[in-house]
Amino acid sequence: MSDTTRSSALGSTGASELFQLLRDGLPRTRAELAAMTGLARSTVGLRLEALGELGLVGPYADAVSTGGRPPSRVALIPSARVVLGADVGAGHLSTALTDLMGRQLISRRTALEVSDGPEPVLSLLVAEADALLAELGRSRDDLIGVGIGLPGPVEFATGRPVNPPIMPGWDGFDVPGWMRRHLDVPVLVDNDVNLMALGERSRSWPDRDHFLFVKVATGIGAGIISGGRLQRGAQGIAGDIGHVQVARGAGIPCHCGNVGCLEAVASGPAVAAALRRVGHDVPGGAEVIDLVRRGDLDAIMAVRQAGRDLGEVLTACVNLVNPSVIAIGGSMAQAGEHLIAGVREVVYSRSMPLATEHLSIVQSRSGVDAAIIGAGMLAIHHALSPAALDELAAAV
Amino acid sequence: MSDTTRSSALGSTGASELFQLLRDGLPRTRAELAAMTGLARSTVGLRLEALGELGLVGPYADAVSTGGRPPSRVALIPSARVVLGADVGAGHLSTALTDLMGRQLISRRTALEVSDGPEPVLSLLVAEADALLAELGRSRDDLIGVGIGLPGPVEFATGRPVNPPIMPGWDGFDVPGWMRRHLDVPVLVDNDVNLMALGERSRSWPDRDHFLFVKVATGIGAGIISGGRLQRGAQGIAGDIGHVQVARGAGIPCHCGNVGCLEAVASGPAVAAALRRVGHDVPGGAEVIDLVRRGDLDAIMAVRQAGRDLGEVLTACVNLVNPSVIAIGGSMAQAGEHLIAGVREVVYSRSMPLATEHLSIVQSRSGVDAAIIGAGMLAIHHALSPAALDELAAAV
Repeated sequence: MSDTTRSSALGSTGASELFQLLRDGLPRTRAELAAMTGLARSTVGLRLEALGELGLVGPYADAVSTGGRPPSRVALIPSARVVLGADVGAGHLSTALTDLMGRQLISRRTALEVSDGPEPVLSLLVAEADALLAELGRSRDDLIGVGIGLPGPVEFATGRPVNPPIMPGWDGFDVPGWMRRHLDVPVLVDNDVNLMALGERSRSWPDRDHFLFVKVATGIGAGIISGGRLQRGAQGIAGDIGHVQVARGAGIPCHCGNVGCLEAVASGPAVAAALRRVGHDVPGGAEVIDLVRRGDLDAIMAVRQAGRDLGEVLTACVNLVNPSVIAIGGSMAQAGEHLIAGVREVVYSRSMPLATEHLSIVQSRSGVDAAIIGAGMLAIHHALSPAALDELAAAV
Repeated sequence: MSDTTRSSALGSTGASELFQLLRDGLPRTRAELAAMTGLARSTVGLRLEALGELGLVGPYADAVSTGGRPPSRVALIPSARVVLGADVGAGHLSTALTDLMGRQLISRRTALEVSDGPEPVLSLLVAEADALLAELGRSRDDLIGVGIGLPGPVEFATGRPVNPPIMPGWDGFDVPGWMRRHLDVPVLVDNDVNLMALGERSRSWPDRDHFLFVKVATGIGAGIISGGRLQRGAQGIAGDIGHVQVARGAGIPCHCGNVGCLEAVASGPAVAAALRRVGHDVPGGAEVIDLVRRGDLDAIMAVRQAGRDLGEVLTACVNLVNPSVIAIGGSMAQAGEHLIAGVREVVYSRSMPLATEHLSIVQSRSGVDAAIIGAGMLAIHHALSPAALDELAAAV
């Protein structure tokens, strides 16, 4: 049964459906809303009243006075409530509050070790949420949703991590359940690369329905948007491209237990290891980027080769899902154009002409914020869904 | 704007929405429909009347008499109209009429050369449609949609082939426009592998939302269902896996102009060419299958190796889109388990454990019918959409 036919508090009045029209933030007259929905204007009035009682919709104050006439348009009130977006990295926690249009109001970044396990990390997340709310002069009552990105595979339907390699103690942990005992709002949890795909696309490529986001850092992964929707796959691990075999990987062991994986030759640690073998003192990916920025030729060539290895796998991705944009982010993408030049070199020479004719391969524009933007979007999308609105209305 | 809010002939009465509930073919009482939609029973009655006038919905005759009481349930009348599904191959045309539940009523298969160009082929298609209708005792008035599969890339939105390699004269041809001048119903055109994916999934794996269909014949291609929907990609060429590079292809030229493509080593003609080099008289893929069936060890080993090459590319597909089923069809899949054994060997050894834990790699069950089933489904799906129903109502 579709959301619009589910009988429920707000649903039975049809207010949810009307609200979905106003989620774009544009102000509209009652007559416009009646024409868009085919509803009687009196019905539109009743439904707007229900939404007004929730504080979500109100009169739109026109910028230019029209001579004392009362404002005749209504619109979503973006500041009515806030959502929390959180990006849990291996060694950091980024949090932000956004309004209902996804605009970031305030953010924090703090160090943590994800390997400390779920309870210490999530306790910190709750404390950060309270600190952000306090700084903004808002209360927990104003918060209507939380989105969390984790650096490993997540079963999206339950919000539980599934065999996450760098997250000891997290496997199968009920993240939304734990969170709801501390912050009583819906909590959505996803893999961080999926959220980066959502965030990057929404900020920079909102009109592209076939979009690939690739993160190259300690690990390598992709978030896939096909047909305008994030695709998580049967087990929620779609986009796991780091363990596809590449030609240059022959015989090189990967931490996954296989040999020859993309991650074993093109990730930050892999490039650093290759540079150490030729005498450079580079503990990890961050130092590789430093070397590149100082113009070191070995480092530049190594990053470019990592781009070619990545391009080998992305060629298969291009032929398979036919995206119109590939955005490359993660710490290794900060090497400027060198990584992407390697990717382009291989993808454009190896893919079918029709698949690359309108394909853009670009650096991520949202940078480190992509995941947190996506986490906020996920929370908003859920919090403003018809079902969640009904829950909200029932609680008022 | 969603389909349910579009104002239109039937749409304004809401009959389309009610009809979508009945498309599953299950009989329901007015009371049940009222409960499912939240509509007043009088409104349900009015909407059923509108659908009854189109002949699409009517009283359901219960198998067991309830003592003279009139039938109290209504249901879709599957035989009310028919749709035509057509599969255009390189050297054949298969056509079938199905009822509104997708059940095949009658079918034909005839030889043709797709390289004769669009007008001769489509004229034959129209003639076949008329012959099928006549044989079934139906008229053109009963036909409400046509779905056509073509052996090449198609821009789905316009139904025009895009640079199809084996279809001279078809590039950019307005297939739906030409067809509508001869059969005045909506015509949907798609790549045949996409239709095979639709057909195979609907017949054998209806509950799987992440599904890959792979055709191995003269060419190699895949149809991808992600999130329950067929994914065509930005240019409509998603699933073009035949031109991904494989290890064994090194240096081998492909007809696409590149070297080392999967199709250059694992397609029917490629396997035949390899067997000719060791002295077998095999003009093409069909003769390879004959050899395999006679137990020829060279042929069995060649097909198994083709399976391994395919497995190399499918490993990347598995990691990228995380399907729960891969069905392998096309003429080369008729080599029994040998092709699939090669695929399994590589995919299960190369993919991440989580991605293959619940992955089935199986032979297509619909065989040569997969595309024609999918073409019929595409036509039904369109013909019974709210917008198409309105068109139908306006014409009555």
